[in-house]
Amino acid sequence: MVIQLDKNITSDQHLALSNTLKSYGFSSTYVNTQFGKYLVSIGKKALDLRKIGNEPGVKDIFKVDDPYKLVSSQWKIGKTCIDLGDGVKIGNGHFQTMVGPCSIEGEQNIIDTIEHMKSIGAKIMRGGVFKPRSSPYSFRGHGIETLKLWHEIASAHGIKIITEVMQVSQIEDMLPYVDILQVGARNSQNFNLLDELGKIDKPVMLKRAISGTIEELLQSAEYIFANGNEKILLCERGIRSYEQAYRNTMDINAIAILKDKSHLPVIADPSHGIGVRKYVESIAYASVAAGADAVIVEVHQCPEKALSDGQQTLDYQQSKTMHDKIHQIRNVLNN
Amino acid sequence: MVIQLDKNITSDQHLALSNTLKSYGFSSTYVNTQFGKYLVSIGKKALDLRKIGNEPGVKDIFKVDDPYKLVSSQWKIGKTCIDLGDGVKIGNGHFQTMVGPCSIEGEQNIIDTIEHMKSIGAKIMRGGVFKPRSSPYSFRGHGIETLKLWHEIASAHGIKIITEVMQVSQIEDMLPYVDILQVGARNSQNFNLLDELGKIDKPVMLKRAISGTIEELLQSAEYIFANGNEKILLCERGIRSYEQAYRNTMDINAIAILKDKSHLPVIADPSHGIGVRKYVESIAYASVAAGADAVIVEVHQCPEKALSDGQQTLDYQQSKTMHDKIHQIRNVLNN
Amino acid sequence: MVIQLDKNITSDQHLALSNTLKSYGFSSTYVNTQFGKYLVSIGKKALDLRKIGNEPGVKDIFKVDDPYKLVSSQWKIGKTCIDLGDGVKIGNGHFQTMVGPCSIEGEQNIIDTIEHMKSIGAKIMRGGVFKPRSSPYSFRGHGIETLKLWHEIASAHGIKIITEVMQVSQIEDMLPYVDILQVGARNSQNFNLLDELGKIDKPVMLKRAISGTIEELLQSAEYIFANGNEKILLCERGIRSYEQAYRNTMDINAIAILKDKSHLPVIADPSHGIGVRKYVESIAYASVAAGADAVIVEVHQCPEKALSDGQQTLDYQQSKTMHDKIHQIRNVLNN
Amino acid sequence: MVIQLDKNITSDQHLALSNTLKSYGFSSTYVNTQFGKYLVSIGKKALDLRKIGNEPGVKDIFKVDDPYKLVSSQWKIGKTCIDLGDGVKIGNGHFQTMVGPCSIEGEQNIIDTIEHMKSIGAKIMRGGVFKPRSSPYSFRGHGIETLKLWHEIASAHGIKIITEVMQVSQIEDMLPYVDILQVGARNSQNFNLLDELGKIDKPVMLKRAISGTIEELLQSAEYIFANGNEKILLCERGIRSYEQAYRNTMDINAIAILKDKSHLPVIADPSHGIGVRKYVESIAYASVAAGADAVIVEVHQCPEKALSDGQQTLDYQQSKTMHDKIHQIRNVLNN
Repeated sequence: MVIQLDKNITSDQHLALSNTLKSYGFSSTYVNTQFGKYLVSIGKKALDLRKIGNEPGVKDIFKVDDPYKLVSSQWKIGKTCIDLGDGVKIGNGHFQTMVGPCSIEGEQNIIDTIEHMKSIGAKIMRGGVFKPRSSPYSFRGHGIETLKLWHEIASAHGIKIITEVMQVSQIEDMLPYVDILQVGARNSQNFNLLDELGKIDKPVMLKRAISGTIEELLQSAEYIFANGNEKILLCERGIRSYEQAYRNTMDINAIAILKDKSHLPVIADPSHGIGVRKYVESIAYASVAAGADAVIVEVHQCPEKALSDGQQTLDYQQSKTMHDKIHQIRNVLNN
Repeated sequence: MVIQLDKNITSDQHLALSNTLKSYGFSSTYVNTQFGKYLVSIGKKALDLRKIGNEPGVKDIFKVDDPYKLVSSQWKIGKTCIDLGDGVKIGNGHFQTMVGPCSIEGEQNIIDTIEHMKSIGAKIMRGGVFKPRSSPYSFRGHGIETLKLWHEIASAHGIKIITEVMQVSQIEDMLPYVDILQVGARNSQNFNLLDELGKIDKPVMLKRAISGTIEELLQSAEYIFANGNEKILLCERGIRSYEQAYRNTMDINAIAILKDKSHLPVIADPSHGIGVRKYVESIAYASVAAGADAVIVEVHQCPEKALSDGQQTLDYQQSKTMHDKIHQIRNVLNN
Repeated sequence: MVIQLDKNITSDQHLALSNTLKSYGFSSTYVNTQFGKYLVSIGKKALDLRKIGNEPGVKDIFKVDDPYKLVSSQWKIGKTCIDLGDGVKIGNGHFQTMVGPCSIEGEQNIIDTIEHMKSIGAKIMRGGVFKPRSSPYSFRGHGIETLKLWHEIASAHGIKIITEVMQVSQIEDMLPYVDILQVGARNSQNFNLLDELGKIDKPVMLKRAISGTIEELLQSAEYIFANGNEKILLCERGIRSYEQAYRNTMDINAIAILKDKSHLPVIADPSHGIGVRKYVESIAYASVAAGADAVIVEVHQCPEKALSDGQQTLDYQQSKTMHDKIHQIRNVLNN
Repeated sequence: MVIQLDKNITSDQHLALSNTLKSYGFSSTYVNTQFGKYLVSIGKKALDLRKIGNEPGVKDIFKVDDPYKLVSSQWKIGKTCIDLGDGVKIGNGHFQTMVGPCSIEGEQNIIDTIEHMKSIGAKIMRGGVFKPRSSPYSFRGHGIETLKLWHEIASAHGIKIITEVMQVSQIEDMLPYVDILQVGARNSQNFNLLDELGKIDKPVMLKRAISGTIEELLQSAEYIFANGNEKILLCERGIRSYEQAYRNTMDINAIAILKDKSHLPVIADPSHGIGVRKYVESIAYASVAAGADAVIVEVHQCPEKALSDGQQTLDYQQSKTMHDKIHQIRNVLNN
């Protein structure tokens, strides 16, 4: 059960409500976000909603059977829109392409990418400065100084930044320089990291775990929301299956289901999904056709020379073609 | 290695060529189809193609590294088009929607479906008369007599028929009444059935096995081609994964890859893929966006009352909307 | 619901009983096997068993909630023992090792294997004469004549034969020469083949499908039983997963579960499971420790020279060590 | 390549060696653990080992092709033994059972468990005080104070403690009170946590990720070793597959392979593997038969009343039976 509370609810009223619910066998979690105040209340028995509907401080009450509550579409009328400022919005009808290199390589790479972005009208730049790597002996990204440089250049051009945060101790340092903090697949159930990301007021893009279920992704998003941050984007990036003909099984089905089950925007990552350059465009089209609110795609001036493995990276010409066709497909869906 | 042979090659020439190849360490399989004659030649060493290029009866030679040969795009220039007659074609730019009930239920059901098909311009009707069922106590379909009735009505309206064949002994009986014989997921590696379907001159739609790889699907198609039947359609119908939020993981990635690796048309089955009515349309759009040459979709006048479980079945209004949007998405891709 | 019927039930009594059940909303399937007569009755409502317990011809009634009925342990007291004659038994406390080459290679290979078997006390010889192969260009086995030769030699030494049947048309030819007919993973849901194997009076070993569920395996076994053949062995041979460090994920869990859910004997196939010679012994021990009633293992005098790929094949010394340790582990479990 | 260095190597010698390797195109990571000094050197070209074998400070050189280096069995002669003191050892022939509740529930629960452990001779107690939970609204464990109490009681009885650490900030607080720090499946690729656990001198038991590969598990272990901590235990706890008849697919195959590929001890967790009480014992036997160096099993005086979900938890009688049979199976394997 999700109870929307009055913004002006007093702590006495909120405690009284919790106690009333407790008397009916319900445990309650008080949630205070940028946008609202809520009580998430969980119990085993059915409760006649009229019994609490008139309690002081109660704005609205919704039954939510899903194991996730605040991120569920069962209580929220309408879809969530993430507003990055300067007219850059995602969700609730707003669409974006996020493009850029796998790893941010340096000043020239940033400039080249932004120039390309301006030529196609893309507004959000992706790129890693902290990279999760299976092996301790692999390159782990250029770090915070490169992020600062990137932010300086990007903000001068009105370009927004999305990049991955890997641990709690990085959040504070990174915060002034990013527009969206990305949580990678390997951290999708790093609950302590999610707790902390719930305490900031910046959008978080949460990737599905390597073999995470759709329900687990939504429950991980619930951690962020329940800690106070409603600005969440969900990202499908492929799941692990037996098939070896591609890198991951990009789960287009999940896009359709997430759009239905949650009010949060859904982002598709075909680069890390199928993971093979020549198929990335087709999977981007399929993602949009299934309802994605944004695609995040690796692009590089010369994919073969990209710092990290560029086998899933598009060149600028492919990026432009993709960008154009995606917008046409969206027009078909919106008619 | 695929060697295209002259249509007029004599058996002496063909034997001589096999012997020459044998002397180089290559084993050869002679393949004689509706459309051509081929030698599929497999060896471990490299062979200088000039050594056999001038042998009598040799038309063209292609190196094919794929484990499948005749179904590979490595030898055939252009895509295969399956022509069902009366202008109904699939592949090489031609697109179709195949719609109909899960099981053919009887005369009224056939008539209703065809009426719906005419209203939206669909040309191929799907439906089961022999149904594979996990349990021996479940309904197994209305059988051959219903197929005959169906054929009588459909052919009067210029509607083509696709239906599943489950065993060798059914082929001969079914042949006069079907336009495409479908091989189900559970028979995708029933090699004896594939052998026999290679000996007929009717199109065969081969479904990917429940956890079949893309490579195995193409090797199963190779069985049909190598036995003499080039009229093959490949069908993606979802794979089995850990995710339980839907019925199967419709593998849109496979559509893009099959289109690239093979010259055969690729059909998408979103009904048995995602398996949940409200998501079928989105997955159909995604399939088309990824390049599918046809979609096969369950539709029923009243899905709740369908003979077989109708939870993945669209009603006629949904079918019409889907049909229209699919054609618009195809226009975007073809521009 | 499984109703055991009197052996002397008349057809009138049997029809009357079906009609009574029908009046309560239950559909019934009459099953007549080598060992008994049954009515498998399926309905949606609860039924007071006393209402039919005194009907003429009824011996006993069991509620079976499993989706499989006659193969379920919910009705049968005690475990099934498959008796191959000459004291060779499997199940209900009897254990066997089945050893032999991947493909039967010829007379010397048969003689060598039998000599090895006698030295370790093994009684059942495995080997393929019809081989399912992904590619139509691969070796498909030496066929029926080799089976006849094998049977001649083996029966002279009191050795029993298990080999794979691939299609309905082979059953009659193979029947006189085999002691157990094996159904391979790719045919595990070839329902027409299962129907026919239910009509013979020889043991059938049914392998789990490549990504078959435990429930599907038991439902496939139900096909055989429901057609009249109670002599069924279930075989775990590894499932397909994302892990690539071995051939298949030998699912030891399934052995424990099958032993609990069904009264049928459970066989483990570690050769096709893990598929790497140096690990086969460990997986055989694990299978026995989990409760397997037999192991089927590929052995060859010289695995590197085996006709088919011998990478999962043990040599005779490994086979002997395995055989000895397996029997010691069984002693631990039985104490 | 793993280069074992002299304990007395000077920093000048170590730098000179790195530079020599750099001149051959090899990058080097210097590793300094409790037990030794190493240079892990990675390059693309082959290197004649004689060229560096006589460099000052070099003790021994090993080619290691595995993607993991220091945890590979390719360089270390013999198996690693983890010594917890008081004669409690794991690995290299030493076996332990680790038992205890899912969550530590309080003083009485600790006392009961230890009494049970003494009666069967178990030395290591398991139990959670910090619990990773999919939902933010679930119980997350009793925390550090309960760990302190547990440690007080356990150490008085010579019982060792294993419990899960979830984040970097907990390590320092927990360290005095634990004998083995456990990394859960969801943190198996939390590289920052692994880095920090490499800087302590206490054993770490690393669980395989939910759908982690065997190779990824070993690479995660490499993070710990490369940061300076050689005291690592690997844990198989079941992988995620399509099968729904049990909780996870306990991958017994992985036990055999990890024992072969690495010198580290391998622990089996059948409770979280198969996850169903009545099958846990069988899977424990199978794990031991496949070569596990320890099993970690949930036990509780009254599983139905356990604080966390007790469906995979054994009662004390089952625990005792399991303990006895496991030791008998180990005797069979060691003969």
